[in-house]
This record gives sequence, C-alpha cells and structure tokens, in this order.
Amino acid sequence: MILAERISITTAKPFLDALAGRLVDPPPVWLMRQAGRYLPEYRATRAEAGSFLDLCYDPARAAEVTLQPIRRFGFDAAIIFSDILVVPHALGQKVWFEDGAGPRLEPLRDAAGLAALAPGSVTHRLAPVYEAIARTRAALPDGVAMIGFAGAPWTIATYMTEGGGSRDFVAAKGWAYRDPVSFDRLIGRLVEAIADHLVAQIAAGAEAVQIFDTWAGALPSDGIARWSAAPIAAIAARVKAAHPAAPVIAFPRGVGPAYRDYAAIPAIDGLSLDTAIAPAWARAELGATRALQGNLDPVRLVAGGPGLDQAIDAIRQGFAGRPFVFNLGHGILPSTPPEHVARLVERIRGPRP
Amino acid sequence: MILAERISITTAKPFLDALAGRLVDPPPVWLMRQAGRYLPEYRATRAEAGSFLDLCYDPARAAEVTLQPIRRFGFDAAIIFSDILVVPHALGQKVWFEDGAGPRLEPLRDAAGLAALAPGSVTHRLAPVYEAIARTRAALPDGVAMIGFAGAPWTIATYMTEGGGSRDFVAAKGWAYRDPVSFDRLIGRLVEAIADHLVAQIAAGAEAVQIFDTWAGALPSDGIARWSAAPIAAIAARVKAAHPAAPVIAFPRGVGPAYRDYAAIPAIDGLSLDTAIAPAWARAELGATRALQGNLDPVRLVAGGPGLDQAIDAIRQGFAGRPFVFNLGHGILPSTPPEHVARLVERIRGPRP
Repeated sequence: MILAERISITTAKPFLDALAGRLVDPPPVWLMRQAGRYLPEYRATRAEAGSFLDLCYDPARAAEVTLQPIRRFGFDAAIIFSDILVVPHALGQKVWFEDGAGPRLEPLRDAAGLAALAPGSVTHRLAPVYEAIARTRAALPDGVAMIGFAGAPWTIATYMTEGGGSRDFVAAKGWAYRDPVSFDRLIGRLVEAIADHLVAQIAAGAEAVQIFDTWAGALPSDGIARWSAAPIAAIAARVKAAHPAAPVIAFPRGVGPAYRDYAAIPAIDGLSLDTAIAPAWARAELGATRALQGNLDPVRLVAGGPGLDQAIDAIRQGFAGRPFVFNLGHGILPSTPPEHVARLVERIRGPRP
Repeated sequence: MILAERISITTAKPFLDALAGRLVDPPPVWLMRQAGRYLPEYRATRAEAGSFLDLCYDPARAAEVTLQPIRRFGFDAAIIFSDILVVPHALGQKVWFEDGAGPRLEPLRDAAGLAALAPGSVTHRLAPVYEAIARTRAALPDGVAMIGFAGAPWTIATYMTEGGGSRDFVAAKGWAYRDPVSFDRLIGRLVEAIADHLVAQIAAGAEAVQIFDTWAGALPSDGIARWSAAPIAAIAARVKAAHPAAPVIAFPRGVGPAYRDYAAIPAIDGLSLDTAIAPAWARAELGATRALQGNLDPVRLVAGGPGLDQAIDAIRQGFAGRPFVFNLGHGILPSTPPEHVARLVERIRGPRP
C-alpha cells in the first residue's frame, strides 16, 4: 500500500503531512476565511486599519489578524489575511471595497482595457503581502503551517470584467464567448501574475498555497476545462518549477463531476471540495492518494447544536482512511458564533466517531 | 436495443417522443423562461396586466404570453407562464414582486409559521393557472406539447423562509439544521401542495410537467438526498399515481455528481442538466435510455455569433444517439436578443453538425 510506504517521512506539521499524501488522524483542520468578521478581535483591528485594502497592505495588522484565529482555536494552518483582488489592483485596475456592498472595480471589458494593465511583475506592488507572511510565519506556534493564496484567473476575471460580484456573469462570459482569443490573453496575463504572486508568497515563508476558483461552477463544462482547469494547471506547474516541495491546493467551487479533471493535474497536491460533493463520490472518483479538503457547510457552523456534531462526524467518517484536511465547503460566514468554531476543533480532536 | 423497440409508438409530438425514451432527430427544443422579458410582446402584455402576480392569475393574458414564443420561434413545447411562488401564495403566505428587486415574501421561520399555513388543497386558489393551461392547450399548433411546472419543495422553502432570494440560505438551512423534524414537515406540506398542483395542471391539459429545484446545489450532499431528491421522488410518484402516462422532468440545478441519484428515481422520465454538466459525463453516468435535457449556457444566447453556433453544435453532438431535448442550462436572460433565439432554432433544425 502506497500510503504505508510514505508514512515514514513526516514534517511535524500535520497539515503538510496530509498534503504529502499521508494519513493523519485526527485530520488537520483550518477554515476558509478563518481570519475575519465573525471574530471580535478581527473587527477591532479592522476598525483601526482604515479601509479593507489598507488592512491587506499593512504587514503588522495583516499578520495580527492572521494569527488571531490560531491563538483562539489552535488551527493546524494559518492562511495569510489578504484578498484575491490584490492581483488586479497590482495590475493597475482601480479596486475599492464598500462596506456591505462587496468589492467594486472599474470594469475592464475588452482588449483595449487589457492593453492598459500595468506591464511586468506584480510582486513589487505586493511586497506588503510578503512581509505579512514573513512576520506571521516567524510568530507561528510549532506544528502550524503557513498558507499563501490567490484567486484563480477565471474568478479574478469575473470581478475585473463585471466591476464587482455578479449573478449571471454576462460581462465575463460575454467577452469570453464573443472574443475568446482576447479573453484567453486576459486569462494568460492573470496566469503569469498569479503564479508570480504565489511563488513570491512561498519565497516569503508560505509552506503551501491555495488557488480559489470560487466561480468556476458558473462556467459551462467546456469553459471549465479552458478557463478554469487549464489555467490552474499552468499556475501550479509554474509554482512547482520554482518551489518543487511546496504543495498546491485547488478549490474549483461548483464544478461537480469535473473535479475529476482537476484530480488529474499532476502539479495539484490537494483538492478542496465544495459542500455538494459527497465524500463517497470523492473517494471513488478522485484517487486514493491525493489529499482532499473540505467540506462542511458553513451554515452548519452558524447553526451549531447536535446537528453540527453529527455533520462533523459524518465528514470525518466519509474521508477516513485517506489523506484529508478538515475544512468548510465555502468561507466561514460573518454570523458564525466563535464558540461553534471552538466546538468544531474540539470535536475533531476528540474521540474518533 | 431498448431504444429500437420503443421507437414504434410515436405521439406526433417530438418533445413527448424524446421524453418517452425515443431518439428524435433533430432534437425537440424549448427554453426555460421562453415566455418572458426578452420579448417585446411579453413586455407589452405585462404592462397591461398590473402586477406580476396579476399576470400569473389572468388566464387570458397568461395564455397569451405562453403562446408568444411559440408563434415567434416555433418551439416544440410551450411551458405555462406562471411562477413557482404561486404555491406558497396559495398556502396563504404573503407574496409580492418588486420590479428589479425580485420576489418578496413575509418570511416563515419556524413551526408556528408552518402551523399558520392554509390547510387543505391549494388547487382551488390556483384555478386561474389551470384555466390558462386549458386555453393555451386549445390554441397550440399541432405537434407542440404543453408543459406544466412547479418549484421543488427545497427551492420554494428557501423563498418561504428567507423572504426572497438569498446568497447563503442561512434562514432555510439554519432551520433545517436546528430543527430537521419541523423542517421535514414544511417539506412534506410542500410535497403535498406541489403534487396536487402538478396533478391539476395535467388534468387541465398539461402533457408533461417539470419540477424546478433551482437552489438544490446550495445544499450539502446529505441535504441534497434528504431535502431535494427524496421529496422530488415523492412528488413524481404522486403525479404518476394520478396520471401514469404524463412524463415528469426534474431539474436539480447544481447538484453535480448527485445527478446520478435523480437518474435512479423510477418516476422521473427526464433530467434537465445545468451548464456545468459535460455531455460525456451525463452519457456515461445517467443511463442510456432516460431522456436528458439541456444545457446551453444562457449567456451564449446573449452573445450570439459564431460561438453560439459552435456551442449549439457541440451540445447536439454531445447528446447525439440518445433521447434528448435541447434547452438551456438555466433560464433565458432578459438581455437576450430575440434574433439569437431564432438563430438557435434554425441551427438545431438545420443540417446535422
């Protein structure tokens, strides 16, 4: 059995062990958006920082909010506090955040807008992110891994073209469908920028990176292949070329059966599953040795109670006996009571269900 | 081969032939929300009618808008103009539509709200819908089938509990997770009401019915089984008990690999696929004889051009050689140019790709 052969080398970081394809029990746990609005200490730091983007670019405060959930809950990994829209911002697009209304961007709609993006690498403009990672890494307790991240090209492109969040993605897909060649150029420019950003995060101290394709499921099946899976594969390959030992996790949310195509990408070490994916299907279809991550419904964590315990146990049992990282199937909701998060960690580290 | 055995009985309605598991080439075509805002003649009738709900309950005008896309494009099926929220409205919940803001309901949040719903059958309050179906059916050209529809219990429950559309479904899932027993009672009450409504639509002249579970993909995998697939199976069984010959189509949008579980429900004749489902996966996993329907991206129809032709051809080729109904993977968008719809129908009925 391959798993048994690989179990001899351990890193003393359970999260990295699981991503290396080893069985870890209890499974390591962290939560998407674990540094965020549901925590009073985050809201306090956020209030001091000025705008949301100011906080992203303030290394001391970004490190502080990254560490807050580690202190409170003892997660197995810290994910740097940042935002997927720092990449278009570093490419020269106007980006701002309106409280309660989500992100806003001056929309980029065509080849002319694409030509106006800043040339060269984004990494000099994103230096504060790398400094925040270095500071956080230095302050992490033993055994806790440091995660860097970026949005995937398609998801970032939706914000860049729509000018914010969207329901139907008519601007993004309209461009892709009317002029796929120039849309491919936008995606290609984002592959470069995102890969550079992830490579720089690892150089600064990130031990693994996650690529968030939050809106992959809004694409039709052929678009998933062309504008989500292929660019994510290209980014992962670039990251591996620079840092062969750093694991890459992909989160192509909502792609359904197409998770199989991401599982076939050699440079991807871990797949983060959305809530609709049944553990039994993932186990049968996504390979026995690739690390899977997920996929508790964030609303379970809002609701709490005996249903939360049952849902946690069902996921642990569903992914038992294979490399696995416990997480949510989507970001934690601001209305989540912190005591439910504490309960989650306690339950996972308690007796095996 | 089963298909060859079944090909002898035909109804002279290509849409019903495909749902009966027969090969029909070119495939029959209709579009979700084909009667709607993208058509100037719809907007004219809508302006005369008063509120959106007034139009739903005005048999002459509802029949008129149902027939408009049949006259203009010659679709193979007409779907009655109505709304999924007539069911909670008939159950006594306050429902209204604000232009541009979507539907609004006085939210129902717990067992007490559930107890306040009107007892008995919803069908007496929905008589205008049945009259609209009878009028439309009488006016349909030869060969065009009449479709009735309803929302699925889960999707209707999201609107009933959230008080409108939602992003995170915290009210609906929060209730389901905190008190699954009373949430099951809400779902059970909806199973009854929806089944009665579909049975009455068939009695009035509908030749097939479609059950829309638009938000099924927001449920986690165990919730999909309990609150989407199981209630849809129960409704389909009730419909079949009353009208054994009327085909039932299910549209559990966004459920990914769980489409396999719906394909295993005996009372479901057709499965409508969302855009994320690849034809090759559906062909391999959903059985060779069950009718599939879908799944062009509605944004393709907004964009038009050579990309639209290619996307139409790819879907026809992807589902060739099996019972199939051409449709979108989600409702038509208001910004769709009607000439792109005409092009779609022309392309499908033109030479085989």
